[in-house]
Amino acid sequence: MSFDYRGRVNRLQELMGERGVDVVLLSVGADLPYFTGYEAMASERLTVLVVTVAGTPQLFVPQLEAPRVKPDGFEVNAWSETEDPVRAAAAVASPQRVAVGDHMWSVFMTRFQKHWSAEWIPASEMTTELRMRKDPEEVDRLRKAAEGVDRVMARIPAEVKFSGRTELEVSRDLQSLTIEEGHDAAEHAIVGSGPNGASPHHHASDRVIQYGDMVVCDFGGRWGGYWSDSTRTFVVGEPTAKQTEAHEVVEASNEAGRRAAVVGATCQDVDRASRAVIDDAGLGEYFIHRTGHGIGLEVHEHPYMVEGNEEVLEEGMAFSVEPGVYLPGEFGIRVEDICVAGVGSLNQSERRLTTVA
Amino acid sequence: MSFDYRGRVNRLQELMGERGVDVVLLSVGADLPYFTGYEAMASERLTVLVVTVAGTPQLFVPQLEAPRVKPDGFEVNAWSETEDPVRAAAAVASPQRVAVGDHMWSVFMTRFQKHWSAEWIPASEMTTELRMRKDPEEVDRLRKAAEGVDRVMARIPAEVKFSGRTELEVSRDLQSLTIEEGHDAAEHAIVGSGPNGASPHHHASDRVIQYGDMVVCDFGGRWGGYWSDSTRTFVVGEPTAKQTEAHEVVEASNEAGRRAAVVGATCQDVDRASRAVIDDAGLGEYFIHRTGHGIGLEVHEHPYMVEGNEEVLEEGMAFSVEPGVYLPGEFGIRVEDICVAGVGSLNQSERRLTTVA
Repeated sequence: MSFDYRGRVNRLQELMGERGVDVVLLSVGADLPYFTGYEAMASERLTVLVVTVAGTPQLFVPQLEAPRVKPDGFEVNAWSETEDPVRAAAAVASPQRVAVGDHMWSVFMTRFQKHWSAEWIPASEMTTELRMRKDPEEVDRLRKAAEGVDRVMARIPAEVKFSGRTELEVSRDLQSLTIEEGHDAAEHAIVGSGPNGASPHHHASDRVIQYGDMVVCDFGGRWGGYWSDSTRTFVVGEPTAKQTEAHEVVEASNEAGRRAAVVGATCQDVDRASRAVIDDAGLGEYFIHRTGHGIGLEVHEHPYMVEGNEEVLEEGMAFSVEPGVYLPGEFGIRVEDICVAGVGSLNQSERRLTTVA
Repeated sequence: MSFDYRGRVNRLQELMGERGVDVVLLSVGADLPYFTGYEAMASERLTVLVVTVAGTPQLFVPQLEAPRVKPDGFEVNAWSETEDPVRAAAAVASPQRVAVGDHMWSVFMTRFQKHWSAEWIPASEMTTELRMRKDPEEVDRLRKAAEGVDRVMARIPAEVKFSGRTELEVSRDLQSLTIEEGHDAAEHAIVGSGPNGASPHHHASDRVIQYGDMVVCDFGGRWGGYWSDSTRTFVVGEPTAKQTEAHEVVEASNEAGRRAAVVGATCQDVDRASRAVIDDAGLGEYFIHRTGHGIGLEVHEHPYMVEGNEEVLEEGMAFSVEPGVYLPGEFGIRVEDICVAGVGSLNQSERRLTTVA
């Protein structure tokens, strides 16, 4: 099943009219595939879609890459190696107000600013409103992706050996299983063992995993363009009382966050619900990140579950609930599910602390 | 061996003084690691180095990622989940003229522009001048990377089976061998078989490779931060006369480009030398891209070997020479080496058309 790209562009053009935005420029990042089905290559050769308030969007694409484009509701302008694509794209309009895709490289924005004396705003101020409410087909893809990582989680205790192997070796296993379970691509596989688990952004290292280690496994990939992202924390052998108790706190925090993530709640309500459980257990100082992030065509997108974000959850908004505690020098624990407001958690794999070999 | 990051910053600050640039902002991309040894994570959480004409550069980094930073000639400012890093970074200076790292996301540039009313230029106008002249340690890393892919190329005929397997399977083999031969990461492995080879930006598909196919293999990765990137074209079984002749033209074109790539020549001289050989053979219309790109901390960087580029090659400039011909519906051929002006080709693997199984 495909998406109604032209319908999405029409809604964007309506928003542009309402907000007095004359041009939207989309390049690398997820906005372009959302509106066209085409994803720009990130390179020094500019790909840019110029959307005006009325009319057909114009895609400027390097001649070399033009064969990859399937025009669906937009026109293709291929530029050759000796042409200046910014000059060509800037000739489409004379805007007073430009919205630029969040990830467009600044080097191209500075070049457009030589042609256009305009006010510049982030395109996400408009595109977020469209993209953060998922339609049923999008929720279906997120669900298939979540089910894929759930199957991997279920296979881990029996099939993945931890003790005596490096985090990198385990990480490669998780990526292989993610592909085996049907993902188009396995994009990240954090394996944080023992003290490494206490750094939430640790990836995977050549540390050899030992008996008694807690191991944070946080991985996912893309399924029909949409992301999975789930975390479970395992223990090699028997857990200590401290490990067991801390894990129970994080499980309860994850559950509280999921229960709070209902239509009509605010994003910060979700964060507060998860955080309260960890605070009450006296571990608040060790929960050092926000509770969650939106997910869809990007693994991190709006809305963010963070203190201060009073956005109200609506039907179809998709995001992670992933509280954790991080004890420096000892271990980390995180339990992460993808939830959809009005639907509930897409991940259903075992959340209790599970022993691995 | 490490690099003299503070020395590099000093040279940047001198250039800023000469050009009236008050602030340089560096975020994702290769400029930041060039000046600090630290590579920003690409995410919605801003990492930015603020360099002023005098004084110590200030790095603003998410608190979560701060443990990954080793300060070497700069100061670290960690920001928490509920702080605004743009406000904090913008408070460092009140510039009239700002140079922004080419790959910084536009969303952050628009937010800095709310704080600073200034002229904005691409930082590459300055950083390129430093980065494109490689010092001996940089050339050494590029050489080790090139030698690594040369060893992979040498192993291909005996160890990689092509016929009856998909391009993706062969691509995975090339990536595994690249790691085995010492790279830190295998980043790209184009396998373009038969008609797929005729699209220079084709990656690898589930097409099954057949007897008689020409196969473009273009791959590389990173070694101590520096890239390899080499292409050889193989044939499955015996080549036809047409395949053999076309390959000889591309070999000769590659050699002409390498011979032209001397200190004092211009970049377009290299392109013209390679192109003349293909033009003379009557295949000019099938050589549809520039002859080469600079290489270093990025796989594509300045200088570019393209018509119209009159930059003069200096000792230590590193770039690819990679002419090709692309016959739609039939096959493609490309032969690519990394060259350093004043040094010669770093790649030395067999360039003649070689049979694989």
